Amino acid sequence: MLARTIRAGFRRAGSFNSKQFSQMTMDTINPKVISAQYAVRGEIVIRAAELEGMICDGNTSLPFDEIIYCNIGNPQSVGQKPITFFRQVLALCMDPTLLANAQDGGQASTLFPSDAIARAATIMEGTGGHGLGAYSHSKGVPYLRQKVARFIEERDGYPCDPEEIFLTNGASDGVFAVLDLLIRSETDGIMIPIPQYPLYSAALALKGGDMISYYLDESKSWGLSVEALEQSIAAAKSRGVTARALCVINPGNPTGGCLTVDEMRGIVQFCEQENLVLLADEVYQENVYVPDKPFNSFKKIVSDMKSPIELVSFHSTSKGYLGECGMRGGYYEAVNIDPQVMNEMYKVASVSLCSNITGQVMVDLMVDPPRAGEESYPLFMKERGDQLQRLKSRSRKLVAALNELQGVTCNMAEGAMYAFPQIRLPENALKAAAAQGKAADALYALDLLEATGICVVPGSGFGQEEGTLHFRTTFLPGDEKIDQVVTMMSKFHTEFMQKYA
Amino acid sequence: MLARTIRAGFRRAGSFNSKQFSQMTMDTINPKVISAQYAVRGEIVIRAAELEGMICDGNTSLPFDEIIYCNIGNPQSVGQKPITFFRQVLALCMDPTLLANAQDGGQASTLFPSDAIARAATIMEGTGGHGLGAYSHSKGVPYLRQKVARFIEERDGYPCDPEEIFLTNGASDGVFAVLDLLIRSETDGIMIPIPQYPLYSAALALKGGDMISYYLDESKSWGLSVEALEQSIAAAKSRGVTARALCVINPGNPTGGCLTVDEMRGIVQFCEQENLVLLADEVYQENVYVPDKPFNSFKKIVSDMKSPIELVSFHSTSKGYLGECGMRGGYYEAVNIDPQVMNEMYKVASVSLCSNITGQVMVDLMVDPPRAGEESYPLFMKERGDQLQRLKSRSRKLVAALNELQGVTCNMAEGAMYAFPQIRLPENALKAAAAQGKAADALYALDLLEATGICVVPGSGFGQEEGTLHFRTTFLPGDEKIDQVVTMMSKFHTEFMQKYA
Repeated sequence: MLARTIRAGFRRAGSFNSKQFSQMTMDTINPKVISAQYAVRGEIVIRAAELEGMICDGNTSLPFDEIIYCNIGNPQSVGQKPITFFRQVLALCMDPTLLANAQDGGQASTLFPSDAIARAATIMEGTGGHGLGAYSHSKGVPYLRQKVARFIEERDGYPCDPEEIFLTNGASDGVFAVLDLLIRSETDGIMIPIPQYPLYSAALALKGGDMISYYLDESKSWGLSVEALEQSIAAAKSRGVTARALCVINPGNPTGGCLTVDEMRGIVQFCEQENLVLLADEVYQENVYVPDKPFNSFKKIVSDMKSPIELVSFHSTSKGYLGECGMRGGYYEAVNIDPQVMNEMYKVASVSLCSNITGQVMVDLMVDPPRAGEESYPLFMKERGDQLQRLKSRSRKLVAALNELQGVTCNMAEGAMYAFPQIRLPENALKAAAAQGKAADALYALDLLEATGICVVPGSGFGQEEGTLHFRTTFLPGDEKIDQVVTMMSKFHTEFMQKYA
Repeated sequence: MLARTIRAGFRRAGSFNSKQFSQMTMDTINPKVISAQYAVRGEIVIRAAELEGMICDGNTSLPFDEIIYCNIGNPQSVGQKPITFFRQVLALCMDPTLLANAQDGGQASTLFPSDAIARAATIMEGTGGHGLGAYSHSKGVPYLRQKVARFIEERDGYPCDPEEIFLTNGASDGVFAVLDLLIRSETDGIMIPIPQYPLYSAALALKGGDMISYYLDESKSWGLSVEALEQSIAAAKSRGVTARALCVINPGNPTGGCLTVDEMRGIVQFCEQENLVLLADEVYQENVYVPDKPFNSFKKIVSDMKSPIELVSFHSTSKGYLGECGMRGGYYEAVNIDPQVMNEMYKVASVSLCSNITGQVMVDLMVDPPRAGEESYPLFMKERGDQLQRLKSRSRKLVAALNELQGVTCNMAEGAMYAFPQIRLPENALKAAAAQGKAADALYALDLLEATGICVVPGSGFGQEEGTLHFRTTFLPGDEKIDQVVTMMSKFHTEFMQKYA
């Protein structure tokens, strides 16, 4: 009953009063807003919510009885459980009375492991006793930024200054903040991979900057070549656009590709040569499934090379093995930045006061999980290991099945949470899509949704080489469900190909 | 020891490498960023943090042994305790194992009241079982938006559509989102009260819009007259600026003034006449300390008048009696909006995926606290009542003391969390400030800080009528501390006046 009421909310009509004039219409609002697109929550997802509403309302005429959301990397919405220790610490921080009871050996002490109690107490002290309910320093609680700095030092083997860490609501906030600094007018551009995560194209459209596309090579595991970067920046220059930064997503979204050290060094050299800020989206740094391409941070590579380039790298609690999307925890590290510009970054952060403190604490837990010898370590290692193993095996299963399909090829997902298969559709399907004014991959994704309840995102939402078609699907649904997805996708694909043969 | 390490973080040098060029310098970053100012966390607050660092490092040469932060409405940073029930519910939502134990009659059931357990279970169900760790719908969890809509209906006696509610990270996010829609170029402007909360001026500067100032009347309890609005919009028109929206803060920040129903009706009529979107900052709606000016929402007034104006009203968990700033919970309600424009609002929200879910749940608790007959009701009512009573009595005490000082006048704080006294300084003080290149009220606030450790914000950070000087101070410090603040402020003021006599 509750579910039914909830879903109904999606479809209630607005209370717009017709009137002769209004200040905000499609003709009068900021056109940059209209130009921004975000396919991960676009048309197909809105249709999926409608179908879900029909199911909740008892409609049994659909050929499926649930929507399987493979459109977004949102692990806990498809059954992933949170890491026990992380939530225990946060529950204790949330309720100071509970924490005091646990510390005093009261009943709560039997409900929580000792290291969770100790960690919660340390975090509370680290916030100056203010806990989760006070605004922090606008870069984040200083103590928690020191913890992040120590994590980065251990990871990379190079110093990290906590003053160069900004804690943010997820990674998106940081991307917006840096684009605010970089984009002065429509002739300022940012180099963005194609395919890309559409946060970048959407944020650029909102800020009014130019998107300078560079192409990843699908035939080489979505590898990145300096030649592609050079072609791209030359094209930008020829149309009068100044490239200000190069954005790299590693491990890749939506591609799943991981960069080699050689590729990374080439990127850094290119940034030096062209004087570009390097924006490194490293939110999938724990999601690597191939032994020969371990994650290296750009901070490490830049430090190895003693490069003076300005680097901003982004991380988040939403991905990895923890998948804590709802917490909106994240940070960025900004190095080699002019100190006055750093002050401006702080000032901009201060206008929004601070990121949410619960998310800040989740960052602390992500960068400093239980260690060997601590009470929660065995359970933590099991939960973490199981989750990463599951992601790896599901990715293998899904990619193998996709490669079995007629006209479909899919690179191995070396990392991240997505497969991004290329689909070659019959001429009749292309014509049918054109007749409906749709991209052909959007037609395919919509048909997949209507036939199976599986929600994926068409490749056109991420960008793709002219004349190619793709879709992005997560491999997040649980083990049984992923088998179901594979079976339904295969059946649908065969029927789709026959229909338009 | 921990405290010492923490504070040291504020002062560690950056790792900026000198080099011959960099992409981001003060000459090359977006000048809109440079133009934005946010005094609530500006120069004086940075100096306060330095002084605090000195104290933490054992420096005993200062004439005080702590910094008292009266610069920001951050109740839990100055000792306010969270509402017990709210944190109990959130702790149970945070740790699903704990909730299951409590529901099954395990030990946790003795640690939490039954209504907290029941509420946590209902919220978990309301999130579709996803809890706090999954991204929600980009407007917020539908169930929680329905709860907000019911609250607004009960408050105002008019319908509220949950589809017109957007849950946000605090109120600031919503302000940014709406300005994104409204500001197309530097000839689009927003009418902002003077004095104002500098979020508005800073956000406008970042978006490149024009700030159309209108003046509140200090001699009439910071009242708002339609004449002042008309003068202001006429001035904007004469310089070629299009006013797109009128921003009103009620109860007022920094003024503490509350609007009368007549003033509100005049504002709505003015918006109709000039075709303006009304932006109503109503985050202090629970902070009203005078019986003759009870809070009325603009939604109610607009509905009473059957006005077709577009209204966006903002609310937050950060203020009121709960003061949950760190949770970054908030919402806005957008009514009479063109449905296509509403879709654009949704699209922009979707680029950042969603606000943090913990904050969303805190909004639920704020709009639906324990009710009569429920187990937690008596404690909740006591905590709420005590907090509001304390704020009222501290505001009276502080304002009375300020009015005793030579050259100082201060309107009663009818609402909100601030006093905004006018200070008339001797000619020699004005000359000394000018010689240092400082605003005279900034000199006063800095001297106050250096002499007492009390951190306030100069009136120039909020805007004030030409030739007048003010400062903003919260009345949030605890009862003993507020006595200390009053004594130290009075002593400092007398000495300052003598020094520059």
